[in-house]
Amino acid sequence: MNKIVVIGMGLIGGSLGMTIKNKDLAKKVVGVSRNIDHLKEAKAKEALDDFSVDPIEVCKDADLVFVCTPIASIVPMIKTISSVLRPGCIVTDVGSSKSQIVSEAEDAMPEGVFFVGGHPMAGSERSGIKAATKYLFEGTNYILTQTPKTSGEALKKLADFIEKLDVKLSIMSPEKHDLAVAAISHMPLAVAVSLVNAIGGLGQEKESCLRLASSGFRDTTRVASGNVEMGRDMFVTNKKAVLEMIGNFKRSVEDLEFSIKEGDVSKITDRLERAKKMRDDIYGS
Amino acid sequence: MNKIVVIGMGLIGGSLGMTIKNKDLAKKVVGVSRNIDHLKEAKAKEALDDFSVDPIEVCKDADLVFVCTPIASIVPMIKTISSVLRPGCIVTDVGSSKSQIVSEAEDAMPEGVFFVGGHPMAGSERSGIKAATKYLFEGTNYILTQTPKTSGEALKKLADFIEKLDVKLSIMSPEKHDLAVAAISHMPLAVAVSLVNAIGGLGQEKESCLRLASSGFRDTTRVASGNVEMGRDMFVTNKKAVLEMIGNFKRSVEDLEFSIKEGDVSKITDRLERAKKMRDDIYGS
Repeated sequence: MNKIVVIGMGLIGGSLGMTIKNKDLAKKVVGVSRNIDHLKEAKAKEALDDFSVDPIEVCKDADLVFVCTPIASIVPMIKTISSVLRPGCIVTDVGSSKSQIVSEAEDAMPEGVFFVGGHPMAGSERSGIKAATKYLFEGTNYILTQTPKTSGEALKKLADFIEKLDVKLSIMSPEKHDLAVAAISHMPLAVAVSLVNAIGGLGQEKESCLRLASSGFRDTTRVASGNVEMGRDMFVTNKKAVLEMIGNFKRSVEDLEFSIKEGDVSKITDRLERAKKMRDDIYGS
Repeated sequence: MNKIVVIGMGLIGGSLGMTIKNKDLAKKVVGVSRNIDHLKEAKAKEALDDFSVDPIEVCKDADLVFVCTPIASIVPMIKTISSVLRPGCIVTDVGSSKSQIVSEAEDAMPEGVFFVGGHPMAGSERSGIKAATKYLFEGTNYILTQTPKTSGEALKKLADFIEKLDVKLSIMSPEKHDLAVAAISHMPLAVAVSLVNAIGGLGQEKESCLRLASSGFRDTTRVASGNVEMGRDMFVTNKKAVLEMIGNFKRSVEDLEFSIKEGDVSKITDRLERAKKMRDDIYGS
């Protein structure tokens, strides 16, 4: 790659720049942000060679553009830059839900310019350029999306590049991606938030509950302490898949609830064993 | 205390013996188990001075008896020993649900012998005497129960003793205890199990979900990898409070689900903020 533009200098954009520079994967990395302080900090952290507050100007001769803005700004930003991109340019994003973004971004691409949706599943309790590191992506999952409109050549070129970030790359449809992240990321958040709020609604019993809260409660609800805006965006932008998974989850809760109500010890045991086996298969026992 | 009998040489019973001996809180600690190997191992770990397979024989002259058997055996064991206990003896247990045990144990006590329900909220991923340690209770919550039938004198004597284990002691009614542990321990288990099983029911999408599972899913479901028998006993013995809390939890999920369905961004944000604030108040942000 000759020139890579990274738009948005937060945790993900900054870490991408640092990783690309550290591994020497492009001749030039240009960072874009509306905030000049973030750009200066990114420069000091060696996340970029050059920077600008004007995405249109710097995208003109880019080979690859990463759109790393907050999720609600991804499509508007892509529409802003699309008309100046030169043929052969690949545009990708880092949004945590994909169906809607990919569909709108594909429609916004001019002839000969390619969009491939992306989602690096890396994060940190901290956010912003200050938290950026060249190790953020190491060993994490990175998803690229493929649709009937995706250019096979552009996908292969981007996939080859992404793999150099030392990530575990998966390629799947936007719909499959959205259901998967709803299941393993957005639903756990919905559940953790609901667990905490169920206790919040207890009234005078609340205090004795909280005093006794131990490691089980702490871990089960950890994600409820995450960034509120990010959580809100997950639920808003991935609505369809999140609602589908909440429906599945509620059926699963009601199945267990029924077996407890009936005092059906063998069914309770079966549900516990099934969950333990499946989880132990993933993480080891 | 002259003589303390600990019945059941598992993780809790063994750790109790080790802590009492280490802190020199009794002239003599006698351990009881049906398994002679466990007793020998407990002896080697300095969890007891003497041991027996016969609870009736050794309880005759006990000042304090800890019943640390599996939860389903607690009341039968108390009924087995009750007739031989001498006046002034205090009996306590370590079961994780209290209403039913306390009510039946109180009824089984002869004149002048006192029952006070207990629940040390300490645990480990490991179980059995091999996992026992004299540090198990340090800084953990320990609950003693009080009912209209509880002797104030016996409760005070036991509370003074338990505080020497370096625990955070709370005294509350069995009903308040059961609701609290349902909220902060049994409900998180029900939720973690249901989260895993909801993905287990996904069919062909299951594999892509599991491949992407990250730290959020791992932590939110951690307790689903715990001991199956212990989980089953929580749901069976604490049925009433667990069902009440599952009901509260379901309303909390449905409230969030509705706001996602409606695309009500300010309500979604409010639910996330409320949960984050309450959790951060407990654990720090």
